[in-house]
Amino acid sequence: MSLDFFFYPSSVALFGSFRKGAIAREILRNIVEGGFEGKIIPVNPKGGTVEVGGKTLTIKPKLDEPVDVAIIAVPAKIVPSLVDEIGPLIKGAVVISAGFSEVGNDELERELVEKARKHGVRLIGPNCAGIFGVHGKFFGSFEVRVKPGGLALISQSGAFGGAALAMGNDEGIGFSAFVSYGNASDLNESDFLEYFAGDENTKAIALYIEGVKDGRRFFKALRCATGKKPVIILKAGKSASGARAAASHTGSLAGSYEIYRAVFRQAGAIEVEEMEELFDAAKAFEMYPMAGKRVAVITNSGGPGVLATDKLERLGLEIAKLSEKTVGELRSFLPEQCSVRNPIDLIADADYERYKRTIETVCRDENVDSLLVICVPPIFIPSGEIARAVVEADCDKPIIANFMAGELVKDGVELLERNGVKNFPTPERAARALKWLSDRSSP
Amino acid sequence: MSLDFFFYPSSVALFGSFRKGAIAREILRNIVEGGFEGKIIPVNPKGGTVEVGGKTLTIKPKLDEPVDVAIIAVPAKIVPSLVDEIGPLIKGAVVISAGFSEVGNDELERELVEKARKHGVRLIGPNCAGIFGVHGKFFGSFEVRVKPGGLALISQSGAFGGAALAMGNDEGIGFSAFVSYGNASDLNESDFLEYFAGDENTKAIALYIEGVKDGRRFFKALRCATGKKPVIILKAGKSASGARAAASHTGSLAGSYEIYRAVFRQAGAIEVEEMEELFDAAKAFEMYPMAGKRVAVITNSGGPGVLATDKLERLGLEIAKLSEKTVGELRSFLPEQCSVRNPIDLIADADYERYKRTIETVCRDENVDSLLVICVPPIFIPSGEIARAVVEADCDKPIIANFMAGELVKDGVELLERNGVKNFPTPERAARALKWLSDRSSP
Repeated sequence: MSLDFFFYPSSVALFGSFRKGAIAREILRNIVEGGFEGKIIPVNPKGGTVEVGGKTLTIKPKLDEPVDVAIIAVPAKIVPSLVDEIGPLIKGAVVISAGFSEVGNDELERELVEKARKHGVRLIGPNCAGIFGVHGKFFGSFEVRVKPGGLALISQSGAFGGAALAMGNDEGIGFSAFVSYGNASDLNESDFLEYFAGDENTKAIALYIEGVKDGRRFFKALRCATGKKPVIILKAGKSASGARAAASHTGSLAGSYEIYRAVFRQAGAIEVEEMEELFDAAKAFEMYPMAGKRVAVITNSGGPGVLATDKLERLGLEIAKLSEKTVGELRSFLPEQCSVRNPIDLIADADYERYKRTIETVCRDENVDSLLVICVPPIFIPSGEIARAVVEADCDKPIIANFMAGELVKDGVELLERNGVKNFPTPERAARALKWLSDRSSP
Repeated sequence: MSLDFFFYPSSVALFGSFRKGAIAREILRNIVEGGFEGKIIPVNPKGGTVEVGGKTLTIKPKLDEPVDVAIIAVPAKIVPSLVDEIGPLIKGAVVISAGFSEVGNDELERELVEKARKHGVRLIGPNCAGIFGVHGKFFGSFEVRVKPGGLALISQSGAFGGAALAMGNDEGIGFSAFVSYGNASDLNESDFLEYFAGDENTKAIALYIEGVKDGRRFFKALRCATGKKPVIILKAGKSASGARAAASHTGSLAGSYEIYRAVFRQAGAIEVEEMEELFDAAKAFEMYPMAGKRVAVITNSGGPGVLATDKLERLGLEIAKLSEKTVGELRSFLPEQCSVRNPIDLIADADYERYKRTIETVCRDENVDSLLVICVPPIFIPSGEIARAVVEADCDKPIIANFMAGELVKDGVELLERNGVKNFPTPERAARALKWLSDRSSP
């Protein structure tokens, strides 16, 4: 089923208050400032005008023309009748309003779904934070806007989603879409998995869930999606106390975590343990669809090279055994103090040429599937020089970069990111990125 | 043994080249710019002057007065004779120069040690990145300067140390001292552990090691230090490949990791798994010496509360069971939709008053040892308001804060940090901080 009308709409109507600080106004501001190129219709019985993002829009007292999607932020009790009224004019509705099943008003939610079904309207929410269709420049949520890229984020928790978008911005992640689906009265995680599996702008899908209602359907949707692209899952409510808290939060039966875990694994999803890992995995998959297990580590400092090696082995990856040919070649141009066995230590005065030639030599080795390139602040040259070596090296295998630390390698990290190479701030986080990439290579 | 003359010197002499880009000049610049208030004497047979940090210093052709510490960055082969020459004038020498046992020149290193012993001079290095005595405003290294605080960082790897200082700056950590001890020809990790255990400016010690030479002495020094303050250890060379790499890097016999692990545990040290954790643990211990196991989670968003709960349980901490009195009190002033069972969900519109009163109520509960306070970007008020509630709440139990994410809570995080409350960027990292604090409470 195509949900393009939600994520690539050509017109949108907003229902709610447009006073300063009101939710509908914040969403309107995001849509206008985000550069949406379709028709935008604010609707409120009081009429008037609203100024946002340097534009003045006329507020219509009622909707009187067809639009792709309606975003609704009016009091819960009038939502069903509104949907009944505008049903013939809309394809989908995003219901931001809270006050439905999550506070025990199951009857009101049933009524909402019934009105929507009557008109063939699909629903997202209620009790949700809205949606983004980033490549359609459609920011239909009050959450912080994000850069375009390959990650579709599906979140059962609106606030988690909002925080994740903001962290994603900090981590340099690009997004294709965001959906907070709240009470999942109609469309749920399985629908979005299926949809984003087919969305050409989405390279990877990230899913935050506390629980699902229809396990069988979820498994099917998940397997369908993982067959096409990586799906990263952060499951909350894994512990006994966490599951109780989830039940009170989203009303989810978090269920036995062991069952979820088995489902994720069997369906080929990448399960992450922590919020930070969700971003690290997303960064890796925005760059590469997968990578083999045999890693070459290249560094200008022994210590971080050892830390990376420890972590790689612990995660079940292999420290690639370089061929004698590679070792000989490295020996031929590297200074004597360098270590030419994996991890390869180019020592502190390594420059552009030393990095580039080493990367290219190692990349040609048939025993190597992927490269982890570490750079601590070089003493005599700017880190941008090393970054340029990473970017310009002729290598067709996945390269994961760990430039550290902070301010001292800022120019290097910026150069990497301008060229689509995402940086991982510690050796261990870089190693973990390779682990997830390798999970996609072995069935 | 006091090593105050190294970390709180009243005078320092530098030996090396003071040309642009030379190591001795970079160290001199750091010492001058760092505001060292004692005497600074650059020494080079060529004499002349050197301009650094807006000051012009006269380079003496030779040292002709006593100083506390000499920092030496001259070619390896002339270091022993230099130490022999200046031995009567100095208490300690930091030998930056490389080219000793780490490249097989064991004889030269033996000679260096012999000359130092002859004059009763203590040695740090050779082949090291230098030292900082931050509270003595003494930045005797080319590494990036840091803010004063409670963490003493002891690093076997100079480059690791440098990267760690830079990351520490980014993470808002304050340092008391830094020492890169290189080949450990004289003073080693055990000496520094003993010294910093007694240093009043040091609240916690962080140690990066690949291997130690004298295990018995190390165990004794470690146990002595942990009896006085927390010692955080990151051991590199844990895996088979990592151990091999460590052997080639610092010449360490990394040995069986299982033995190290047992030693760390028996001595009461906090072992961390990753570089990032070293900072998180340091942040926790800069604030609190320890914390009990029973945690109350307070949040304005269900999802992150569930993630924190999951992690706490997984780490063996307890989700505190609030007393009926506490639950009743919370019920009396919190809106109906809030969850008053731990984790306590104050929901999206929580403000200063709601956070402050909840923290104070929960803090009085005898079943609660510590608090984890989560804040996702509040919609209607600045995050600074919530941060002010955390800071101003009347609570004498450890509070760990997790404000997320990034730009959106910047004002809140800044307010926290100005008031000595360090922020942890994800719920899971905050939970882990409490785990380390609790490790210090149970023997």
